[in-house]
Amino acid sequence: MKITTFIGSSRAESNSELLADLVTKEIKHRKLYLRDLAIQPIHDLRHKEGGFQPVEDEYDTIIHAFLESDVLIFSTPIYWYSMSGSMKIMIDRLSQAIRDERFPQLTERIQSAEAIVLAVGGDEPKIKGLPLIQQFRYTFDFLKLPFSAYILGEGNRPGDILQDREALMQADLLNQRLKGAN
Amino acid sequence: MKITTFIGSSRAESNSELLADLVTKEIKHRKLYLRDLAIQPIHDLRHKEGGFQPVEDEYDTIIHAFLESDVLIFSTPIYWYSMSGSMKIMIDRLSQAIRDERFPQLTERIQSAEAIVLAVGGDEPKIKGLPLIQQFRYTFDFLKLPFSAYILGEGNRPGDILQDREALMQADLLNQRLKGAN
Amino acid sequence: MKITTFIGSSRAESNSELLADLVTKEIKHRKLYLRDLAIQPIHDLRHKEGGFQPVEDEYDTIIHAFLESDVLIFSTPIYWYSMSGSMKIMIDRLSQAIRDERFPQLTERIQSAEAIVLAVGGDEPKIKGLPLIQQFRYTFDFLKLPFSAYILGEGNRPGDILQDREALMQADLLNQRLKGAN
Amino acid sequence: MKITTFIGSSRAESNSELLADLVTKEIKHRKLYLRDLAIQPIHDLRHKEGGFQPVEDEYDTIIHAFLESDVLIFSTPIYWYSMSGSMKIMIDRLSQAIRDERFPQLTERIQSAEAIVLAVGGDEPKIKGLPLIQQFRYTFDFLKLPFSAYILGEGNRPGDILQDREALMQADLLNQRLKGAN
Repeated sequence: MKITTFIGSSRAESNSELLADLVTKEIKHRKLYLRDLAIQPIHDLRHKEGGFQPVEDEYDTIIHAFLESDVLIFSTPIYWYSMSGSMKIMIDRLSQAIRDERFPQLTERIQSAEAIVLAVGGDEPKIKGLPLIQQFRYTFDFLKLPFSAYILGEGNRPGDILQDREALMQADLLNQRLKGAN
Repeated sequence: MKITTFIGSSRAESNSELLADLVTKEIKHRKLYLRDLAIQPIHDLRHKEGGFQPVEDEYDTIIHAFLESDVLIFSTPIYWYSMSGSMKIMIDRLSQAIRDERFPQLTERIQSAEAIVLAVGGDEPKIKGLPLIQQFRYTFDFLKLPFSAYILGEGNRPGDILQDREALMQADLLNQRLKGAN
Repeated sequence: MKITTFIGSSRAESNSELLADLVTKEIKHRKLYLRDLAIQPIHDLRHKEGGFQPVEDEYDTIIHAFLESDVLIFSTPIYWYSMSGSMKIMIDRLSQAIRDERFPQLTERIQSAEAIVLAVGGDEPKIKGLPLIQQFRYTFDFLKLPFSAYILGEGNRPGDILQDREALMQADLLNQRLKGAN
Repeated sequence: MKITTFIGSSRAESNSELLADLVTKEIKHRKLYLRDLAIQPIHDLRHKEGGFQPVEDEYDTIIHAFLESDVLIFSTPIYWYSMSGSMKIMIDRLSQAIRDERFPQLTERIQSAEAIVLAVGGDEPKIKGLPLIQQFRYTFDFLKLPFSAYILGEGNRPGDILQDREALMQADLLNQRLKGAN
């Protein structure tokens, strides 16, 4: 079972990354730091003659991760009640990726994986993070990607997440399940 | 009364821009195309010594628009059930802007403006766009920026929005109100 | 085309009823006042031997309305950010109705109708009424009943809804469409 | 510390009641079975001369529970993506209770308590139960009643909830906290 974690935070050792580390503790996995990848915002050319044009950036790294993973973990800080801009830029480009003739197998491959969302915020994330979860749900539904679990953790200052006992227990439960499946 | 429209679409003559044009028809206003502005994703340094660092990009254009406007119109296509990545990058940077010592008046100025959201999508926007509206609401609440109106329009192919009679009537109603206030 | 409006308000000439009247203006339709029907809360016996038991009340009136209608209009005040208790009691009993052997055609009949929701509240209904719309959507999805339109109107004191120009225009638009389809 | 659990299910030994029992395990508390109390739907007379009229039913039992409790636990099955009709009828009557001259201290008393919501459903409750949580949040905000925790559990057939490890761990965590506070 291959696991990829997409790290959406802009800072090192972010709370959302810490939470992801707990979920993948002692399990082989790969981490992609979105802040370190050069990814262009999508240019929507669906309705233009010729359609989408090739983009010179590092988005293929993302596509390959989708192609190779059985578990896709989206780890993001909650910025303004939504995912980080870097993660949104990455998600937006999926519209182009699923139409990319170089990867005809992408759509089907995604459907056999599972998605997990880990989001950490400082302003009542367990309530105000709910719209974000609903959006991920609509997105995964569109992709027919099973949405197996999410955790909304609380944290603001570095390390805060380690005080959120509920999030820690949820992470531990997920970790046990992923270990068992390995 | 000064009006600024932030255009979040990646394509020219997008449905969300068309809708914005109807809202501001025959009213003096300014448009900012986010796709044409170089804006870096936020680097969250709130908890680092020294705090946020100056960024060499065009975000000051955004800040000045916030400082000068009485009506802030956020016009975005619905990409994956949320605002476009370009608009999210712009919103994220507000965390830095409201702490920027060069603009001490920003927080208070925002509170005397009003916000309008115009979002157009192709997959049941009047239902699946609701989480996006809730997120804008939480965001404006945080900023104490009155959220005066929103329109969720339907459209996919260029020009589609002109078939959404409900959205057109809502736009016309808003246009009348903004004209009256001018 | 047969239209039934379910009136969920507890008071005469409520704002939500006024709004329903505008939607059905000059169109033949039937109104059911839920406050005047004796309907018992559901007793969930799905997992008991023998299953649901016959209930001596007036719920069959509701079932017949579902069986006979092409357009089902749910008109409710927003009480505590949700539909009225009387309407909820009515909705809950659908779980029994769709298993009632006396009405084997009910489930299929529902799928060829359409549903409209009209909800009026006093505390920012266009934002705080969104969860209610999402719940109706999940409910109609479960029933495979197309959800064709909704209006979230603002009103508190009797007659207030007549000041909500956006709701009035939406009602007029719906009225025109229903008239055209007749 | 006084704890009252409002049981909203229509069946004995429901999953939502089992979950509540785990939260209050080994802690003194009181349970109110809403299905056993005669409670009339609200008759909204806020805008009528004379206002609300006395109702001959058992709602005072609810009011006394609110007056006496430090922790209010709302335990409900998820019927049609929302609370049960019996619980909704109970919530609706709060509009009358907070205006009841016999209980002038009610509004203030509520603000010094805390609320916990336990909801169990069979159709993806951790996603489709989110609007219900948002409605409780708006309700508690209106009442200025702190909303300290919620659990969305999965269960359909009797006893199912005992297979939802995440819900069990959340219940245990809550139980520990309530014990510690006692």
